[in-house]
Amino acid sequence: MVCRAVCACGDAVSALPEYYQQVRRHTLALAEPLSDEDCGAQSMPDASPVKWHLAHTTWFFETFILERQEPDFAPFHTAFRVLFNSYYNGIGEKHPRAQRGLLTRPSMALVRDYRRNVDARMVRLLAAAAAQDRTEQLAGLASLGLQHEQQHQELLLTDVKHLLAQNPLLPAYLERPLPPAAAPAAMQWLPFEGGVCHIGYQGAEGGFCFDNELPPHRQFLEPYELASRLVTNGEYLAFIDAGGYADVTLWLAEGWDWVRSQQLAAPLYWRQDEQGQWHEYTLYGEQALDLARPACHLSLYEADAYARWAGARLPTEAEWEHAAACGAVVAPQIIEGYHPAAATALAAEQAGLLQMFGHGWQWTSSSYAAYPGFRTAEGALGEYNGKFMLNQYVLRGSSCATPAGHARASYRNFFPASARWQFTCIRLARGPA
Amino acid sequence: MVCRAVCACGDAVSALPEYYQQVRRHTLALAEPLSDEDCGAQSMPDASPVKWHLAHTTWFFETFILERQEPDFAPFHTAFRVLFNSYYNGIGEKHPRAQRGLLTRPSMALVRDYRRNVDARMVRLLAAAAAQDRTEQLAGLASLGLQHEQQHQELLLTDVKHLLAQNPLLPAYLERPLPPAAAPAAMQWLPFEGGVCHIGYQGAEGGFCFDNELPPHRQFLEPYELASRLVTNGEYLAFIDAGGYADVTLWLAEGWDWVRSQQLAAPLYWRQDEQGQWHEYTLYGEQALDLARPACHLSLYEADAYARWAGARLPTEAEWEHAAACGAVVAPQIIEGYHPAAATALAAEQAGLLQMFGHGWQWTSSSYAAYPGFRTAEGALGEYNGKFMLNQYVLRGSSCATPAGHARASYRNFFPASARWQFTCIRLARGPA
Amino acid sequence: MVCRAVCACGDAVSALPEYYQQVRRHTLALAEPLSDEDCGAQSMPDASPVKWHLAHTTWFFETFILERQEPDFAPFHTAFRVLFNSYYNGIGEKHPRAQRGLLTRPSMALVRDYRRNVDARMVRLLAAAAAQDRTEQLAGLASLGLQHEQQHQELLLTDVKHLLAQNPLLPAYLERPLPPAAAPAAMQWLPFEGGVCHIGYQGAEGGFCFDNELPPHRQFLEPYELASRLVTNGEYLAFIDAGGYADVTLWLAEGWDWVRSQQLAAPLYWRQDEQGQWHEYTLYGEQALDLARPACHLSLYEADAYARWAGARLPTEAEWEHAAACGAVVAPQIIEGYHPAAATALAAEQAGLLQMFGHGWQWTSSSYAAYPGFRTAEGALGEYNGKFMLNQYVLRGSSCATPAGHARASYRNFFPASARWQFTCIRLARGPA
Amino acid sequence: MVCRAVCACGDAVSALPEYYQQVRRHTLALAEPLSDEDCGAQSMPDASPVKWHLAHTTWFFETFILERQEPDFAPFHTAFRVLFNSYYNGIGEKHPRAQRGLLTRPSMALVRDYRRNVDARMVRLLAAAAAQDRTEQLAGLASLGLQHEQQHQELLLTDVKHLLAQNPLLPAYLERPLPPAAAPAAMQWLPFEGGVCHIGYQGAEGGFCFDNELPPHRQFLEPYELASRLVTNGEYLAFIDAGGYADVTLWLAEGWDWVRSQQLAAPLYWRQDEQGQWHEYTLYGEQALDLARPACHLSLYEADAYARWAGARLPTEAEWEHAAACGAVVAPQIIEGYHPAAATALAAEQAGLLQMFGHGWQWTSSSYAAYPGFRTAEGALGEYNGKFMLNQYVLRGSSCATPAGHARASYRNFFPASARWQFTCIRLARGPA
Repeated sequence: MVCRAVCACGDAVSALPEYYQQVRRHTLALAEPLSDEDCGAQSMPDASPVKWHLAHTTWFFETFILERQEPDFAPFHTAFRVLFNSYYNGIGEKHPRAQRGLLTRPSMALVRDYRRNVDARMVRLLAAAAAQDRTEQLAGLASLGLQHEQQHQELLLTDVKHLLAQNPLLPAYLERPLPPAAAPAAMQWLPFEGGVCHIGYQGAEGGFCFDNELPPHRQFLEPYELASRLVTNGEYLAFIDAGGYADVTLWLAEGWDWVRSQQLAAPLYWRQDEQGQWHEYTLYGEQALDLARPACHLSLYEADAYARWAGARLPTEAEWEHAAACGAVVAPQIIEGYHPAAATALAAEQAGLLQMFGHGWQWTSSSYAAYPGFRTAEGALGEYNGKFMLNQYVLRGSSCATPAGHARASYRNFFPASARWQFTCIRLARGPA
Repeated sequence: MVCRAVCACGDAVSALPEYYQQVRRHTLALAEPLSDEDCGAQSMPDASPVKWHLAHTTWFFETFILERQEPDFAPFHTAFRVLFNSYYNGIGEKHPRAQRGLLTRPSMALVRDYRRNVDARMVRLLAAAAAQDRTEQLAGLASLGLQHEQQHQELLLTDVKHLLAQNPLLPAYLERPLPPAAAPAAMQWLPFEGGVCHIGYQGAEGGFCFDNELPPHRQFLEPYELASRLVTNGEYLAFIDAGGYADVTLWLAEGWDWVRSQQLAAPLYWRQDEQGQWHEYTLYGEQALDLARPACHLSLYEADAYARWAGARLPTEAEWEHAAACGAVVAPQIIEGYHPAAATALAAEQAGLLQMFGHGWQWTSSSYAAYPGFRTAEGALGEYNGKFMLNQYVLRGSSCATPAGHARASYRNFFPASARWQFTCIRLARGPA
Repeated sequence: MVCRAVCACGDAVSALPEYYQQVRRHTLALAEPLSDEDCGAQSMPDASPVKWHLAHTTWFFETFILERQEPDFAPFHTAFRVLFNSYYNGIGEKHPRAQRGLLTRPSMALVRDYRRNVDARMVRLLAAAAAQDRTEQLAGLASLGLQHEQQHQELLLTDVKHLLAQNPLLPAYLERPLPPAAAPAAMQWLPFEGGVCHIGYQGAEGGFCFDNELPPHRQFLEPYELASRLVTNGEYLAFIDAGGYADVTLWLAEGWDWVRSQQLAAPLYWRQDEQGQWHEYTLYGEQALDLARPACHLSLYEADAYARWAGARLPTEAEWEHAAACGAVVAPQIIEGYHPAAATALAAEQAGLLQMFGHGWQWTSSSYAAYPGFRTAEGALGEYNGKFMLNQYVLRGSSCATPAGHARASYRNFFPASARWQFTCIRLARGPA
Repeated sequence: MVCRAVCACGDAVSALPEYYQQVRRHTLALAEPLSDEDCGAQSMPDASPVKWHLAHTTWFFETFILERQEPDFAPFHTAFRVLFNSYYNGIGEKHPRAQRGLLTRPSMALVRDYRRNVDARMVRLLAAAAAQDRTEQLAGLASLGLQHEQQHQELLLTDVKHLLAQNPLLPAYLERPLPPAAAPAAMQWLPFEGGVCHIGYQGAEGGFCFDNELPPHRQFLEPYELASRLVTNGEYLAFIDAGGYADVTLWLAEGWDWVRSQQLAAPLYWRQDEQGQWHEYTLYGEQALDLARPACHLSLYEADAYARWAGARLPTEAEWEHAAACGAVVAPQIIEGYHPAAATALAAEQAGLLQMFGHGWQWTSSSYAAYPGFRTAEGALGEYNGKFMLNQYVLRGSSCATPAGHARASYRNFFPASARWQFTCIRLARGPA
């Protein structure tokens, strides 16, 4: 992560305490529909318990800000430094990732106390800094902490969805009807000329981006075309019905091994009943498969096989980003999804490039790698992104579970090719001829 | 399990409802010190969550008694038949064992409702049967259900101990001081003549035993000697200090592979601090190692290696049982341990054979196998014991976690050689010359 | 192993050099039909390359006899002490078992040199000892070495059978027709009264037995019945056709897990073609399944499930041995099979107890354990048997691949319950009533 | 692979039969120092037996050329189509990769017959085609087959090196002294300006390249610097001595997990003796570590960690290729190494860019991916490269084991990040500033 002069203006600085509390409250709100039992369980090593998310995001502020800047710092609980360290070797020991679900202590009640305690200290620190006009580094770190928290807000939802889906009772996270989806527009191929393009965060001084979006640099793109919208459930079902999961010629070698060894024949949360009807488990419980919605919870293997079947390919991350920039697509400040706010029609979408943000992360064919001139931060925060740049693939856009205002055109999400529990979708590309 | 005319007399029958409620209440009492979060977690596939124990024991009554004998039977919850089936293929599908910890629903509250509901119906059924003088089969099944519940009372404790021990905070199950242990008497070798001995449950008509204790039969024993008490922590520490874990000549080939691959050098819950002091995690939290207590939480591999180091061997299960019978050792009705009741001095212990019951299960060298003429029950209950008679070893006696009145001289507990999370101890044997 | 005064008489001693060479030549003869390439490969960790068998049996003589008794001993090759050590920790390091097939050096030619060299030295040593009347310990060790070599003769055949069976070309070890099998007599139940029986090696002073057959001791047997012959392929096929592999009620829990995870539905070397015809791979290549032959290459899981399906059970090893003794069944000196010699009609077989020896090892329900008073030898040879007495099951009798004169009524073979690549068969038992 | 009009001129066509035989003979020559036993063994699933390489390369000509173009085609052996199919699903079934070492049949003698048979038919076919002026497609396929054979020539060496290295005897592949290495020049940083560069095969009409080098296209490169030579053993040893393998901050997260779980602390074939001296196993047997030679047999994880420790990074594949082109580095027609031919001083090396070819493959930070507009061939040959474009990383240059004339500036080799048994080295890069 890098803070590009967040808070250059006094307004931004003075707004931080309020924004801090707003983001932090939202995390708690996401845990609201869940019992303490729900919050403690861990469904697989890749997913963390909700309670752990609540504690780890708090640990982030305590460890990277309070411990360094608070006078007379004393930890809330001495064991938490290890218990809630995710992967920062620079901080020290870590509780083993696969055993996060065994931490029935500290209790949810104590973790809530932990949040309250750190929040009070953070607000005090932010206020004191504002009063003394020495906000720069603090504001940068606080912004990073909030962006980090937002990343965990999405993970909290994907992880709890995965957990509840393992339960034969298929409980709903949200006990209300799933909002209907609009019928998708016909898919169009939108052409882009390519050439030397500007890639990476180009933002203004006051903006925020992660270190992996930097430095801005040039890439040469051959001409290409991008699909105007995501692949739908209906389209993906046609791939299944055409025998896509059984046709070795459509798959990467590693993907074929994966599909066979796991005996897969549909996206992660799909289920076909005895009558042949398809259902999809959602955060609103299991639903009849809605053919109009974007096909979701797909591995890169599946996305790639689908693209090959459809006579297309996946975009590179540069193609995606260039299109988003050319199309003047801006990340919506308010997105649809599981959040209270409703979706907003986007200017860019009027331009033809639909569902770039707020629907589902879009697999690219680009391996997650450093941009030319990439530098990691000093110290433990240098581990935030850089050490994961191997055998992972970049996803672009954002999903229905991404917090409002979190994503942008240069944003780089990344997961291993086999990951399916994130809200991962397909946007097709083609060309050069 | 087999019910040998439990309830031949009216008294026993009329006492069943009260005894039923007493046993059932005790299970809930064991869960009392735990939060809902504690009750939901599963630390390994072999261990179950406390909530699962509470539900499964209830399921046993609902499935094997209410479903068969209750007029107008309707299940409390249709999904529970699968969710809380442990291993009865005759009943149908089972929720995968390793995923019991993911069942955050049903909630603890609903499981408590389930218990209340089934208890009310069971008490009603028992009362109706008593009124109509048709109690025989019902009483047999109810006794089996209660013995089954008592087995799970012990498992609940061993499983929650294992769970809490995984937590770096090392929380105590019981927040009170560990009762002190008396200094052990000097170990004596007690001789037994052997010959044709009577093995298996020899009990009176009104008693209870499991099917694996039947039929009573004869075995020929060569003369042998049995240690008067269990091996202590102090004695086991001497084995460690003598390099026992690094001396291949002391170990069975499979045990040596196990010790090396797991890199083990002490019993399960022991920890040596930087100053070289040993500690033992107990249900009362971590304690300084008490050299006077029986060495516990040992695998059969370790018990066997210790015995070889000590110039002795483990007893066979027949030797143990014969000694218990010869020594007139009777299972105590009230035992010491984590239960409210205090320990009772036993007649047999006066005879020299100490710690046979109520301290720790004692590994034998006997593979768990059917007695000559063994018969399983008809139907799903035939799966209770028989299908596990392979690659497991018999343990005799009982532990500090065994409910009062549950064990007896012919009782056969069994676990794989590598199991350490039960309260497993060592009693030595030697001979024939 | 224990040598019970082998060679008490001068005849036996003077015969040793000749017998030594006869046994050693037979091992080479078994390798005769194989290429150097065949001799080098290892099909699984449990099986060894033929070349390794040839070298290890030679190593046994070099390490346990020549190294100790040869004046001016010098090893044939310094590296062989480690390379061809199977499992004797008392000797020192061992080449990893699973990597025996990677030892393309030493070459087969060098291993043949090794055998010639050690043979010449052994014969010289035996002759010198005979000349000096100090033969006792040497004769005992030499007998053990030859018995050990005979065990590896059988393993050589089972291992090379397993190797060739992995080859899609299904090459024959012997390029000649499989000798026809006689139609089996009708199976009869032969009753035995039981009582206090004498178990273990009861042999005369001059005989040989392994340490695990000692000491002779008493066991009490309840009355039982034993099947007069082995289960045939035809009978086993009926079990398959009746759905035996899909009926969970027939299987031990561990056996069921094994059958499901391995997706098994027939004995190891059986194959059903597209027309539904069954074939069996043999050392003579693949053959149409001969319904008259004993069903072979079965795990204990399968043997146990078959027995349950047939309303019977497997015998204990004591029952088997007692019957062999009562029936005056003696191990044939010349047995049928892959050896040049033809089968001999046995006196015992006239008595009704057929196929006890020379057809297939017979699974018992007895876990491999020490007899009362069992003692291991001093030093590394003490590792021969004792350290394997856990989680293995005893097989009795002998197979078509067992060398003539090797087996006897008290002989204890043992393998894990899942082993199928040995010539393992089923003899049923039943009772007590 | 793509044949860009190989054989546009009659000369090339008429030279094919001779070139064919030359390449094919070279493969046999590589197997010359090995016994049949050496040729049959397989040291790990990723490595194949020499015999399998000899057969598979022959299978390639038989399956992709003779089967399609030979009148009255009849297979040499019907089973070989499956046995020696590597990974072409379009051809049909494949023998499991991990079991190639179990194919003791067909014998080496039969595989040599197979080669002779196919060679005779290929030469006949090539001659007939030349006589009839219809050579284009045949020449293209034949060239591909020969390039394919050359790839396996290198694999044959790396695989047999790995096999022999598993043997505690550490046998030499070549029983002669390792040629001495010249002292390395001081390392220099050579600057490149970048800009829009031409990447991919730019060759003339008559040249050959694989499909993954196409189409030629443009990439934008920021300015960068490349090291003038490979990292030496001496330099890598300094990394080890500085604690590089124990410093988590130097490693990618996945690399750190790999290093810890495998407990690695040196390159694949290095060994430190009791006196602390380092040795390296080579095809000439184990040698004292030569500090002047390039550090070799490194995973991408190690290459990346070394680069970070050295304050540099790995080049991208485009940077490497651009430098090779700018520096007028051409792939040598005759390279040093295990081949008879001696090394040739290269014009490019005079320019300062040393060891680009013929010393060791050079890891890049580029994930193996399709070039813009990449097209696979029709049919099974389309599986040659494309389906492996995931989770592998590109290596550039060539090694001492690469056949003369095989590599070129646009050549893309690729392996998973953990691969160490290839001749994999490090060339550093740095910049942009």
